[in-house]
Amino acid sequence: MSDAPHLTFDLDMPGVSRGHLVVPGGADHGELLLPVFSLNKGEGPRLLVTGGNHGDELEGPIVARRLIEWLPGAQMCGRVIVVPVLNPLALEAWSRNTPLDGLNLNRVFPGRANGSITHRIADAVSRVLLPMADTVFDLHSFGPKWDCLPAATTHPIADPDLMARTVRMAEAFKLPLTLVWPHNDTAGMFDITAQNQGKVFVCSEFGGGTVGADNLAIYEAGVRNALIALGLVEGKADYPIFRHQSFAQTLETRLSDELKSPAPGIFEPRCSVLDEVKQGDLIGILHSMNSLSAESIDIRAPETSIVLAIASGAHVDANKVVAYVARPLKI
Amino acid sequence: MSDAPHLTFDLDMPGVSRGHLVVPGGADHGELLLPVFSLNKGEGPRLLVTGGNHGDELEGPIVARRLIEWLPGAQMCGRVIVVPVLNPLALEAWSRNTPLDGLNLNRVFPGRANGSITHRIADAVSRVLLPMADTVFDLHSFGPKWDCLPAATTHPIADPDLMARTVRMAEAFKLPLTLVWPHNDTAGMFDITAQNQGKVFVCSEFGGGTVGADNLAIYEAGVRNALIALGLVEGKADYPIFRHQSFAQTLETRLSDELKSPAPGIFEPRCSVLDEVKQGDLIGILHSMNSLSAESIDIRAPETSIVLAIASGAHVDANKVVAYVARPLKI
Repeated sequence: MSDAPHLTFDLDMPGVSRGHLVVPGGADHGELLLPVFSLNKGEGPRLLVTGGNHGDELEGPIVARRLIEWLPGAQMCGRVIVVPVLNPLALEAWSRNTPLDGLNLNRVFPGRANGSITHRIADAVSRVLLPMADTVFDLHSFGPKWDCLPAATTHPIADPDLMARTVRMAEAFKLPLTLVWPHNDTAGMFDITAQNQGKVFVCSEFGGGTVGADNLAIYEAGVRNALIALGLVEGKADYPIFRHQSFAQTLETRLSDELKSPAPGIFEPRCSVLDEVKQGDLIGILHSMNSLSAESIDIRAPETSIVLAIASGAHVDANKVVAYVARPLKI
Repeated sequence: MSDAPHLTFDLDMPGVSRGHLVVPGGADHGELLLPVFSLNKGEGPRLLVTGGNHGDELEGPIVARRLIEWLPGAQMCGRVIVVPVLNPLALEAWSRNTPLDGLNLNRVFPGRANGSITHRIADAVSRVLLPMADTVFDLHSFGPKWDCLPAATTHPIADPDLMARTVRMAEAFKLPLTLVWPHNDTAGMFDITAQNQGKVFVCSEFGGGTVGADNLAIYEAGVRNALIALGLVEGKADYPIFRHQSFAQTLETRLSDELKSPAPGIFEPRCSVLDEVKQGDLIGILHSMNSLSAESIDIRAPETSIVLAIASGAHVDANKVVAYVARPLKI
């Protein structure tokens, strides 16, 4: 047993390889084996596809499994590495974070070899897999507590050239939404580690709520479109049909577009994703849990915008995001 | 403070009352106050509407809150009592069971006055509210891990007259599905306690996955239809439109219609609710978590049937139900 993270096979071997990324053991957990698929067709783009970064977002792992099925018959050149599940401990627990150390894998990159299990996963991915790729697709979704538009997203990037290339790559998914999404909590994201190395990194947000057959078909089409755009596979990229519409738009959301719960209570959604709302339109209602005499509180749109994501009806604490709105991108 | 469960107001007062059902404190938790709404218009049907029996099923509490808003302007006769949230501890935790004692409220009825908090809630409802009603609507849903048809359901009832009246009441919701659902785990259900007292008890299963505005409108329409059928409010009962269709069917599901995971792994749904499947049709696929070389396992329909509910893509253990199918009811 080696103390360094490593693969159980040689990525340079031509053709299909299946094996594991070995995440070394530590005080909190033994050695962890992450299943890895690789298809090496020589010269061409080098792509890394990852899913299961968060354990309650199953769309990515399932689309990654589908990709592995058809890629051997379709890939023409280059190298594709697929890791369907980055965090199996979180996935088995249907939990965003790793239950063992409570950490969010997407906030500990590039990880630490001598850290807890979540740090060690990030370290293994950063050191063993990331150097082998020029482009990364990290397949996320909003998780079970949200409904959201299928989107390929990026955070704003300081380097304008990398930003332009990243937005073009995101748009190549041809999902209903390409989104530029600022975040005040980017430290430790997989995105940042990859972008600091000059790589194009697209984070898909494949909807939310139930992981069902209809939506999985849309998400798989999005990934196929992106692979066509990269020249890895042949075919015609089509806009998938989402809720009886076929369309694509590039939007941005701002920190002020996060609509929050003014108090604790039961959140009742009163609009749906894709709705165009004007200033003052009703987004949702917050009901007191403690009394049926207390006035419910309306949550309204701050200005004209499009509903990008809305929380499921649920009990929420005060100051929690219950909806995201967005507007046309101005670069 | 009294040691017996009681209401903070007099249910016999005419008109609207709002107050609380007091669940006495015990060793594990202090006194619990459940908000209660009552509208007494004298002679007529006596209806109890409850939500939040399971804490991760928010459709019921939200529809109950909506009902409270329009009932004062609509109710013509009789008595309606509404308790939007039976188990606030589970609801705050977004958990099916009560976190404090780990119990499923819908398996401890009629409860025990000297039991843990979940038992005491059941005891308070059974002793204080249930005697005031002839009909009970307990508003459930399949929860966040499922997609399912909006349904009004009943378990089979030994008394044929009560069974017939219960199915008629369930059909009056005019939801896409009226379902007769046998269960091998009925001990302690709210249903049984109510039916043993000769009451008509309908358990709605208001879909699953995301709790969104569109579906809430359907569920609210279902409850309104049922109140019209009872003669409590005036109006015309209409079949709500569900996924661009307006229809209603009465089906039954059998224990053999529970399709289970043959092994642990990631469940990938390959069909949708409302799909008509023939023997051998693909319902879903189970993917190994441990290896990308292991064969995935197909889960297929045992015979011609309709998909009533399908689990969200997720990690499942072996022998877990991942889909329910159903067939036309034969009484």
